Order: sequence, then C-alpha cells, then structure tokens
Amino acid sequence: MKQVTKHVIRNDLKRLFTYRLCLIGFKRKGFDRLYSYTLGEEAGVSADQVRKDFSNYKITGNKKGGYNIDELLRAIDEVIKHQDDQYMILVGMGNIGRALVQYKTFKLRKMIIVASFDIDPAKQSKRWNVPVLPLEMMDDIIKKFHVKVAILAVPAISAQDVANRLYDLGIKGILNFAPVILKTPEDIIVNNINLCDELESVIYYTQKVI
Amino acid sequence: MKQVTKHVIRNDLKRLFTYRLCLIGFKRKGFDRLYSYTLGEEAGVSADQVRKDFSNYKITGNKKGGYNIDELLRAIDEVIKHQDDQYMILVGMGNIGRALVQYKTFKLRKMIIVASFDIDPAKQSKRWNVPVLPLEMMDDIIKKFHVKVAILAVPAISAQDVANRLYDLGIKGILNFAPVILKTPEDIIVNNINLCDELESVIYYTQKVI
Repeated sequence: MKQVTKHVIRNDLKRLFTYRLCLIGFKRKGFDRLYSYTLGEEAGVSADQVRKDFSNYKITGNKKGGYNIDELLRAIDEVIKHQDDQYMILVGMGNIGRALVQYKTFKLRKMIIVASFDIDPAKQSKRWNVPVLPLEMMDDIIKKFHVKVAILAVPAISAQDVANRLYDLGIKGILNFAPVILKTPEDIIVNNINLCDELESVIYYTQKVI
Repeated sequence: MKQVTKHVIRNDLKRLFTYRLCLIGFKRKGFDRLYSYTLGEEAGVSADQVRKDFSNYKITGNKKGGYNIDELLRAIDEVIKHQDDQYMILVGMGNIGRALVQYKTFKLRKMIIVASFDIDPAKQSKRWNVPVLPLEMMDDIIKKFHVKVAILAVPAISAQDVANRLYDLGIKGILNFAPVILKTPEDIIVNNINLCDELESVIYYTQKVI
C-alpha cells in the first residue's frame, strides 16, 4: 500500500512567500543587496530563521556584503513559482466567489480560473470574467484543462460534499473559504482561509493585549 | 518609556479557533464528550499539543471520559470571544472589499462593519450593505463608533499610506488584504491575508509534493 502523509502548508513555505514580498519591497525602494537580519526584521523573524529557511530550501548566495536581491528573488521563484499558467476552478459564486473570479492579481501571477460552478441557475446565466457552470460540468472542465487545484467558496453546509466530489474528480489541492474542517484523504492538500477567525483574532489582540 | 513588543497573531491562538470549529462540528454530529486525541486528529495536531494549548490559555475540564464539548466551547469562547458587537470599518471597495461588506457571517459573529471608505466618488454613490464614504470622514466614524479594528482592502500601492492614517486615528488592529508588508508601530496588530500566496502555496504542493 502506498504510504502517504497528510499534507499541511508548512510555515517555512509561508515565510518564503513573505520573504519574496519583502524583497520586492526593498527592490522598489532601490536596494540591490541586503543582509539576512534586514530581511528578518522586515518579515518579523530572526536572521537565524531567515538563514535556516534558505538553507532548508537550498537557497544560497550569502556573501560579504549580504545577499544580492535579484539573485534571491530568482532562487525563491525557482522554489515556489510555477512557470506556466496554472488552471484552476472555483466552486460557489457567493460574495467571496464573485470577488475571487474578478481578482486581477491571480492572473498576473499566472493563476487562471478557467470556470466557476454554482448550483443556482440564476448565477449561471450572469456574465462574469469566467463562465458559471452547473456542477455536472466539473468533470469535463477538470479533464479538459488538466485542473489540479480548486477554490472552494460554497456555504459551510455543502463544503464537505463538494470537497469529496472534487477529490473524486482528481483535484489535488483546495483553497477552502468555507468555515469547516474538511475531512479529506491524505493525498490532497487543503489550505483553509477562515475570514471570521482571522478578523476575530485581530479583535482579540486589540481587546486583550494591546 | 513604555515597553512594547511587536504583536503577531500567535499560532496557538489560531489553533484555538480551529479547535472551536472542530468542536462545533462534533456537536453537530451528536457527540457530547471527546478526548484530546480525537480533537487533535480532527484539527491536525497531536493530543499533546491540544493539552498544551488548553493549559496555556487556562482551559480545563479534562476528566475520565474526556472533555465535555459544551464546557470546552464555553471556555474557548471565554478566551477568544468578544461578547458585544464589535464595530469596525473597511477601506477599499474593490472586489474583495465589496465581498467583505456583504459577508453575512461577520454579522452573525457580532462583527459589524459600520462604514466603508473609498476614494472613488462613483463607489460612494452606490448602495451596499454599508455606507461608502470619502476617506476624509474616517476620523468622525472612528470616533463615533469607538472603532479599533479596520479591514484594509486597498491596492498595494496605497496600503502603507492608509495604514499610517488608520494608526494616527487610533486604530489598533488591521486585517490586511493588500499584498504588502506594512511598516507599523509596535502597538498595533496587523494580520495579513495574501490571497495569491495562499493559492500559490496550494499549487506548490500539488506540483512538488503530492
């Protein structure tokens, strides 16, 4: 039997994205080189953590005078960035779903939502940036575009059913906006964004800590 | 001089939200009691981690036969949940901003967006769930409703300026959707949601790991 482990988005991978964002910021400000402690301070971690993360992902380039920012960005892109257009689908054309199909930055980063799906025929007839199709057509679209990634923006109550269906159709990664913990097999990655929890944790700090 | 430390959303607080979500799920399924390892498995962490997190937040109630789910939920709510309506503002009525002012779950969780702000007069004249006002009116609204929390959904290029302004007006917590690392003083918490990075990290796993 194939041995699989449950996949979770690792924190060091998340930090790699943060580093990239910081580096782009430094570049815009006109810098060419920087030290790990400068990058760490900007990203909110220690210089040790920066070096450890880079070492884990085999990102080199620390010389006297620090890292060359362009080289670092290329090395990080090498690790995290898909080179070609990535096709994905979205399920659930509520407020969040509609915002996401219109979110231009996805396309700039070569992430293309090829179709969205909703059970509501009224939504299917409306014009958005992408076609809105009935769920019965998911199979066809997933096969046609070799889709591996889906954005799930359906109500909590139907999220598990849709996730099961996506898995059966070969989806390997889900960005889940429904406020539920999905039960999924171990050869699929689920990344949860719970908007209420994110907002409530900000409130927590403003009330109890700051 | 007052000693302040930079605040970041702690992972154990994030897990507390996850535990709550899992517990609500178990309750819906008809369970009354559960063990820390059951909760850990559902939340994707070890039983030790569950007990350690509970201990950190002084959440007790582990007896022979496990925890009572209702008691646990009450204890977690005691830690993380504001009891009264929390008023907040939103800045930037693009796709994401518009979705968030219409996101009903915020209100169910007593998080009320009292007003949103946008520099575009065309957006100010449109009708949404909340009034859309010019940025000049932020000060009045923040004072009137004693607002401490803001959602930032403006383009990357203006995010830092708006964040500075929010801080000057007394905002203590920001949920930031703009894809930039904000430079902020230490007595404010910023929680970043970078939608592209979240989606890209899912792609990373489907391409390289699974």
